[in-house]
Amino acid sequence: MTHLLLLADNLDMSPLAGPLTERLQPFAPNLRVCLPGDPGADTAEIAVCWNPPAGALATLPQLRLVHSIAAGVDNILSDPTLPDVPLCRVVDPAHAQGMTEFVMWGVLHFHRHFDAVLANQSKALWRRPRQIDAARRRIGVMGLGTLGARVATELHRFGFDVRGWSRERKSLPGITTFGADQFTGFCSDLDLAVCLLPLTEQTRGILGRATFDALPRGARLIHAGRGEHVVRADLLAALEDGQLGGAIVDVFDTEPLPPDDAYWRASNLIVTPHMASVASFECIGEQVAYNVQQLLSGGALRHVVDRSRGY
Amino acid sequence: MTHLLLLADNLDMSPLAGPLTERLQPFAPNLRVCLPGDPGADTAEIAVCWNPPAGALATLPQLRLVHSIAAGVDNILSDPTLPDVPLCRVVDPAHAQGMTEFVMWGVLHFHRHFDAVLANQSKALWRRPRQIDAARRRIGVMGLGTLGARVATELHRFGFDVRGWSRERKSLPGITTFGADQFTGFCSDLDLAVCLLPLTEQTRGILGRATFDALPRGARLIHAGRGEHVVRADLLAALEDGQLGGAIVDVFDTEPLPPDDAYWRASNLIVTPHMASVASFECIGEQVAYNVQQLLSGGALRHVVDRSRGY
Ligand SMILES: NC(=O)c1ccc[n+]([C@@H]2O[C@H](COP(=O)([O-])OP(=O)(O)OC[C@H]3O[C@@H](n4cnc5c(N)ncnc54)[C@H](OP(=O)(O)O)[C@@H]3O)[C@@H](O)[C@H]2O)c1
Ligand SMILES: NC(=O)c1ccc[n+]([C@@H]2O[C@H](COP(=O)([O-])OP(=O)(O)OC[C@H]3O[C@@H](n4cnc5c(N)ncnc54)[C@H](OP(=O)(O)O)[C@@H]3O)[C@@H](O)[C@H]2O)c1
Repeated sequence: MTHLLLLADNLDMSPLAGPLTERLQPFAPNLRVCLPGDPGADTAEIAVCWNPPAGALATLPQLRLVHSIAAGVDNILSDPTLPDVPLCRVVDPAHAQGMTEFVMWGVLHFHRHFDAVLANQSKALWRRPRQIDAARRRIGVMGLGTLGARVATELHRFGFDVRGWSRERKSLPGITTFGADQFTGFCSDLDLAVCLLPLTEQTRGILGRATFDALPRGARLIHAGRGEHVVRADLLAALEDGQLGGAIVDVFDTEPLPPDDAYWRASNLIVTPHMASVASFECIGEQVAYNVQQLLSGGALRHVVDRSRGY
Repeated sequence: MTHLLLLADNLDMSPLAGPLTERLQPFAPNLRVCLPGDPGADTAEIAVCWNPPAGALATLPQLRLVHSIAAGVDNILSDPTLPDVPLCRVVDPAHAQGMTEFVMWGVLHFHRHFDAVLANQSKALWRRPRQIDAARRRIGVMGLGTLGARVATELHRFGFDVRGWSRERKSLPGITTFGADQFTGFCSDLDLAVCLLPLTEQTRGILGRATFDALPRGARLIHAGRGEHVVRADLLAALEDGQLGGAIVDVFDTEPLPPDDAYWRASNLIVTPHMASVASFECIGEQVAYNVQQLLSGGALRHVVDRSRGY
């Protein structure tokens, strides 16, 4: 009997049991999907996780695979007792579509001044915003992975002037790209920065004063990476003093964001509830099942995280 | 000496004089651009108009061409004394881009429930909206002219399930199309209707109870045609009783919308200040200059309105 443990903090993983069992049944009839406390949970060979409690994975002596249900794995790698077994993440085409929709909405929101238009409506104020061509709107995408590359490509296709920044400089048709050591040049003339980085030791706190000051005054920010990319006091100050003209932030250190958090009422800040892109349990089930099948049959795993890079 | 008269109500047309003169000077050195009251205005052979005062064009005995500065010509055709000379409109690629941006923002706003998310923020409420695939979101575009066809094509390319309705049924790759007499079928299962019709006797009042009732309950509306497409009381009632789940309306009978208008505060209604797509004076100048050159040299005019159709 092989046990697969669903392990999460603050999220009900049970809806994943059905799709997983259904897909795994035909070729792994002896596999059981279980939750913490269920019989067999402590002999699990596979753990499927979101925010696993620190230390929990180290208590599983037979562990052979850790699988995130998300694209980001920072909440798994942050556990110093994480056992040395392969760690995989979910890479879902629907993820990239959802993220593109989210970012496109945000870019158009600022590009066409819907922030001002909505505020004007509450004052019954008819004021046509200034309209400039998309081709003159400079958007910079931080992180050109499965999400960032797709977002950058779609923004370019839609007519925007798009730049991209990644650790190793990429080649993407129509997009001006920058490598890790060219960050200041990348920032220098952006109207809007989109953060789609993974959280690593190098990127923690990257959305802080130095970055905001490297952007032109009044630039906008769309942040859908991780909460810990942000230096909270710097973001609030930059919005307050106008160095940032507006921001949309989808991810936070503490989620759900507590009701009394100052972010909810910060000026020119749109708070969204970690909604940019959610992989369906259907899709997570398909991807996890594939890797479980590979593990059991000795095949190659897909979307394995490079622990030395941290993503 | 040929005179070209700039004729508008409620809009300063003088910024058009420069681009027009500059373009026309080389081949029509004897042409003068003038405003009402200027010497030569009453012998104008060409009138370039936005909302011309009723009767004004009929006072010009030497008139040979009326040119709108917009895509819609309803505010010119509505004058029963309009002289029987060619009437042209502006068809601008930047128009279609601007309209696509506006509609895309609105579609994503409803598709991804940003209306609920923004309302939740004011209550410090963290609530992840339900996310469905774009491919399952049914968007219907009313009017498949230069604007509607481009908007429909881009929405389809972005992944939405797009349907289109026009007088004569069109063929557009990937889009399910309907002809004039198939309106009810077109409406029957839409999540969202986008109105990009011209204002004619057939389309006046089309956004009224019968259409709202033909849509599924809770459907959304994006309206960027003309104010007179809307039956005001029906729209407010449908938003109030939930037959319409939300609307974005960009055009109104009276513009600017008066500060005490009920639209400003209607539930689930976003009012935008006729901003969906604005042709630049630069582009208007280019298109009008082309047609003036054609008129003076006896060539074929571009974008001539079919008066029997009304658009
Ligand atoms: N808000 C949401 O709903 C949501 C949903 C899903 C994911 N996310 C976030 O989005 C992140 C990105 O996901 P993904 O699948 O696109 O990740 P990915 O495929 O691993 O791509 C990461 C990108 O970031 C770049 N990068 C990493 N470290 C860098 C550094 N120090 N300097 C410059 N560039 C660096 C990488 O550069 P190289 O190309 O050179 O390796 C790569 O281009 C996730 O980690 C997660 O935090 C958010
Ligand atoms: N809000 C803004 O900022 C803004 C800016 C520009 C324009 N507009 C509005 O947008 C309108 C459309 O512009 P356009 O350049 O796309 O116009 P267009 O090229 O003349 O196209 C009009 C479309 O509407 C269809 N149509 C006309 N009467 C119809 C009827 N009775 N039943 C069904 N379909 C009908 C036409 O059908 P056929 O293809 O069969 O002829 C055509 O597809 C303008 O007239 C103006 O009112 C608004």
